[in-house]
Amino acid sequence: MRTALVMGTGLIGTSAALTLASRGVTVYLTDHDPEQARTAAALGAGTDAAPEGRVDLAVIAVPPAHVAATLADAMRRGVARGYLDVASVKGGPRRELEALGLDLSAYIGTHPMSGRERSGPLAATADLFEGRPWVLTPTRDTDTEVLNLALELVALCRAVPVVMDADAHDRAVALVSHMPHLVSSMVAARLEHAEDTAVRLCGQGIRDVTRIAASDPRMWIDILSANPGPVADLLAELSADLDETVRALRGLQSADEDKRLGGATGIEDVLRRGNAGQVRVPGKHGSAPTTYEIVAVLINDQPGQLARIFADAGMAGVNIEDVRIEHATGQQAGLVQLMVEPRAAPVLSAALRERGWSIRQ
Amino acid sequence: MRTALVMGTGLIGTSAALTLASRGVTVYLTDHDPEQARTAAALGAGTDAAPEGRVDLAVIAVPPAHVAATLADAMRRGVARGYLDVASVKGGPRRELEALGLDLSAYIGTHPMSGRERSGPLAATADLFEGRPWVLTPTRDTDTEVLNLALELVALCRAVPVVMDADAHDRAVALVSHMPHLVSSMVAARLEHAEDTAVRLCGQGIRDVTRIAASDPRMWIDILSANPGPVADLLAELSADLDETVRALRGLQSADEDKRLGGATGIEDVLRRGNAGQVRVPGKHGSAPTTYEIVAVLINDQPGQLARIFADAGMAGVNIEDVRIEHATGQQAGLVQLMVEPRAAPVLSAALRERGWSIRQ
Repeated sequence: MRTALVMGTGLIGTSAALTLASRGVTVYLTDHDPEQARTAAALGAGTDAAPEGRVDLAVIAVPPAHVAATLADAMRRGVARGYLDVASVKGGPRRELEALGLDLSAYIGTHPMSGRERSGPLAATADLFEGRPWVLTPTRDTDTEVLNLALELVALCRAVPVVMDADAHDRAVALVSHMPHLVSSMVAARLEHAEDTAVRLCGQGIRDVTRIAASDPRMWIDILSANPGPVADLLAELSADLDETVRALRGLQSADEDKRLGGATGIEDVLRRGNAGQVRVPGKHGSAPTTYEIVAVLINDQPGQLARIFADAGMAGVNIEDVRIEHATGQQAGLVQLMVEPRAAPVLSAALRERGWSIRQ
Repeated sequence: MRTALVMGTGLIGTSAALTLASRGVTVYLTDHDPEQARTAAALGAGTDAAPEGRVDLAVIAVPPAHVAATLADAMRRGVARGYLDVASVKGGPRRELEALGLDLSAYIGTHPMSGRERSGPLAATADLFEGRPWVLTPTRDTDTEVLNLALELVALCRAVPVVMDADAHDRAVALVSHMPHLVSSMVAARLEHAEDTAVRLCGQGIRDVTRIAASDPRMWIDILSANPGPVADLLAELSADLDETVRALRGLQSADEDKRLGGATGIEDVLRRGNAGQVRVPGKHGSAPTTYEIVAVLINDQPGQLARIFADAGMAGVNIEDVRIEHATGQQAGLVQLMVEPRAAPVLSAALRERGWSIRQ
């Protein structure tokens, strides 16, 4: 790939353009707002001049609702050898394109699984896609040459290509992203009018469950509007599970021992299925989570405490795999949980204790 | 308080005993398994000999189902001036005690909000309660002297006392702990039979939502069995919300524009209520979460990288408030998100860049 046209210079378009430009590809930039394209060009993402001939790859990075029209226009003008879009939903847009009667052999739908809280060209970075999955949804009609152009783009961005059917992709993101997002919002919503005293009892569990509920509603309305069917199906499944669980809990309240036993069995069932599903969530490096041992260290709020812990751990030759900081309620103190390989845990505990840290192993 | 009797030398009882003993209180230990009490004594938590006279405070730290019987027996024998229990549910046990016709003026129900993955005396630590809320549920019948004994225990354990009504406590823990736990399990359960390709797309969001679904089902069946009513009520509320959301999503799929608009409004409503609830979750030091700026640093998997980052941040005089490590899929690389006060972010970015780190700000 020697030339590319990036249509839409928001976060994703500009990030892809920055990466391509840094790898020696000549990148042309367009945006319905020429000022945005100028900004992207000023950042080193390419030029906002028009390409002189047909480019190798056109990257359509406009908002989901505009993909079909932008792509149809670009294809009719024959601006590129291959075309791809990067919208977060793939089934609906493909059907829109098919309905327009276009020859789609030169097109492939894709979805890089990276995002940020911020948007626009100024938020773009050349390493946005590094190590992240980038879904490709070729069909039997997709030219091999176009699939290879897309794979080259993914490789240049150092992302990890994952080939999927468009509708399977939409169901997958509903499962791993859209449904959990709405559920997190609904759990958090229960706190809106809760008493202050109750809210004071919040710990790390609910903090984690509700973290993503802090996201911008406008962005999420767009995402969910593009994928309502699969998300609704999953929430309906969840609703059935929820009703079963309410029944099991009511059973536990019963005076009848059989009902209580049935209730306990129902609760155990949902907890065990939760265990089985949780284990599948990829941890480090996309593999099944290794079981790390936790070494917990008490800190106060003095600057530099974390730095000292990490330096002391480094001195002991221990690699810290993950870290979680849990702050205490109403006190200037907290607990740092260091996750390490099981055989490293006693080494680390001893080393930190020796250096004066208070360990809760 | 000069003398205490700890009845039940599991994690909580032994931890309280260790703290009291370290503060100079004479602690007597009993357990239905004398071996457990001997272990606790060997750890320095007190003596497993019988007290010679009436002690100041009896701490009942037996499993929830045994609280009433143990307490009734201790009260009938008049072993202490004041009595408290530490079970995680408070309304039911109190009603059980009332049904036994005991004079409860010398009793107060309490719940220290600390726990660990491990249990038993060997998991105990003198700092288990430091900075954690410790709920006290006095009634109008509770002697002030007994309330003060409980407050003294909480102060000696360096916990934060929170006074609540017993039933309000049970509703609060249902809200901030038991309900989120079951919801996390139900979201995780959706992954049990998901396709491998879908599971590969999991990111930090679902990882956080499902983290607590990894907990031990047996422990959680006990917890939920002691508090089924309030948990069922909350799940029923959530179920109504869920059904509304499914309706809103189906509206978004409709050909009718009014229905689509209604759907979008419904989705926006749940997302906004989620925002409003999430803001209330206490962050650092039990206060509303401060908005930190994130400085994201790319790392590879070489040992000592985190230590170097923290040391470099310390050298720049920047206090890191929180940290999150996000590992890349299928690659030996990851992203460390350092959360710092907004005005410290540019300082930290510049300092780390200067020292050769790759920053994604």
